[in-house]
Amino acid sequence: MLDKDQWFTEICTQDGSAFSLKTSAKLHEEQTAYQRIEIYATEKFGNLMVIDGYYMLTARENFFYHEMLSHPALFAHPAPQTVVIIGGGDCGTLREVLKHEGVTRALQVEIDERVTRLAEEFFPELCSSNHDTRAELLFADGIRWMKDAAPGSVDIVMIDSTDPIGPAEGLFTEAFYRDCYRALGDHGLLVQQSESPLYHMGIIKPMRAAMQSAGFRDTQTLFFPQPCYPSGWWSATLAGKQSLDGQFRESDARDKRFETRYYNAAIHRAALAQPEFFSRELG
Amino acid sequence: MLDKDQWFTEICTQDGSAFSLKTSAKLHEEQTAYQRIEIYATEKFGNLMVIDGYYMLTARENFFYHEMLSHPALFAHPAPQTVVIIGGGDCGTLREVLKHEGVTRALQVEIDERVTRLAEEFFPELCSSNHDTRAELLFADGIRWMKDAAPGSVDIVMIDSTDPIGPAEGLFTEAFYRDCYRALGDHGLLVQQSESPLYHMGIIKPMRAAMQSAGFRDTQTLFFPQPCYPSGWWSATLAGKQSLDGQFRESDARDKRFETRYYNAAIHRAALAQPEFFSRELG
Repeated sequence: MLDKDQWFTEICTQDGSAFSLKTSAKLHEEQTAYQRIEIYATEKFGNLMVIDGYYMLTARENFFYHEMLSHPALFAHPAPQTVVIIGGGDCGTLREVLKHEGVTRALQVEIDERVTRLAEEFFPELCSSNHDTRAELLFADGIRWMKDAAPGSVDIVMIDSTDPIGPAEGLFTEAFYRDCYRALGDHGLLVQQSESPLYHMGIIKPMRAAMQSAGFRDTQTLFFPQPCYPSGWWSATLAGKQSLDGQFRESDARDKRFETRYYNAAIHRAALAQPEFFSRELG
Repeated sequence: MLDKDQWFTEICTQDGSAFSLKTSAKLHEEQTAYQRIEIYATEKFGNLMVIDGYYMLTARENFFYHEMLSHPALFAHPAPQTVVIIGGGDCGTLREVLKHEGVTRALQVEIDERVTRLAEEFFPELCSSNHDTRAELLFADGIRWMKDAAPGSVDIVMIDSTDPIGPAEGLFTEAFYRDCYRALGDHGLLVQQSESPLYHMGIIKPMRAAMQSAGFRDTQTLFFPQPCYPSGWWSATLAGKQSLDGQFRESDARDKRFETRYYNAAIHRAALAQPEFFSRELG
């Protein structure tokens, strides 16, 4: 049995599964204006951030998620300069975005400043680009921000949010995607974390439909491992104003001049392969 | 907390993680001559088989493993007729192999007959091809069998075993791979489950080296999700007597006349993409 003083456990009630990490200390706990944040030191996964009882990230394996949310979108746009991250308060996505030299402005719009302040303290490696002159950290409501954004002013929107319950719920709606569509330039694209392909087809399918109803011409789902999230298998979904086919700048990805731990050109192509059941369920 | 009467938990001590499934009943438990087998009914994953405290398979998600252990190897051989499965007592791999019409003989060599008898009772869907005229079920020591196999008599060896501790330990050695090499024909290949790429590089790296020392000219590792195994991310490693490059019969895979739930031609290619850290660690 797992002694609750020694293990953090997230139970996924809907799918009757649970994932646990052995902890060595609870480093911090607070109730912010938006959510309850806990930080643990784990035995083998480095520091762990938990929000409202759900895994957000661990030092050991957040690289899958952050790399796969950012690089495929960046290498699928012909020349991304302005990137807006909605959520993403741990700053890991921001760090990956800023590895691209062509990006001139990366704006992170996180509703809860405490997430970023705690990331600075407990995950400093993710915050190493926060003082890059191209980085801008805004603590505000991303839905509101997107409503007010100047039309055509953004190249890529990255929606790096918690699950579609609580504060993030509005980020999974057609209304929000319409605002993103308006804010994006002609070759603009959006990428959003889209939950587990095994557990959450009931989220992915309507999300893709809502993106298309909002005007996006093409959607593609990317598949990748993410051990601390339910089922250990995760996804991100791209939505393009233009067709995404043939948009991948493969030779640029192959010649990238920055380090990654998971992503590379072959992984980019691989992540787009649709499992049989997925294609079948999309119909 | 997870009440142990309601949850089955496997703790991965080495990596400080644990995965749990909610159970509704323990259906069976026995100590065989080789190992302790438990069968549970779970709430959301169908029946579950546990051996010596480790997840073997669940009805819901064994398709990842069984399809990825079998179809990539079968479509990487020019014309596989004789397939030998070492282990694989649940018969799921056997069922996948027999979906290939060109296969004329599929021999499963499982050391513990009780695994198969319990699979017939609790996972009948995996045993649906056990009475195919091309199927042969032998209950014997796979290491011994391979030592005695006629040279050049086998097209593909599939090593579908438990972890490299206990009865399966000898299946991860250069001596065993040498016997496989001898048993295989000129275009022969071997495939073996090779644990988690995140947790077990210490197994994968020496396994690949031992396969090459045993005479195999080429090795390739395949990556795929497997939610109930440690880290939720798993691998299988191919070893070919010839180079494996360009051996994939892609159009045959695309035109396959049988159903799968995960595998298809795109997934085959995708599974071969090496993550950055993996290539780096292999050197």
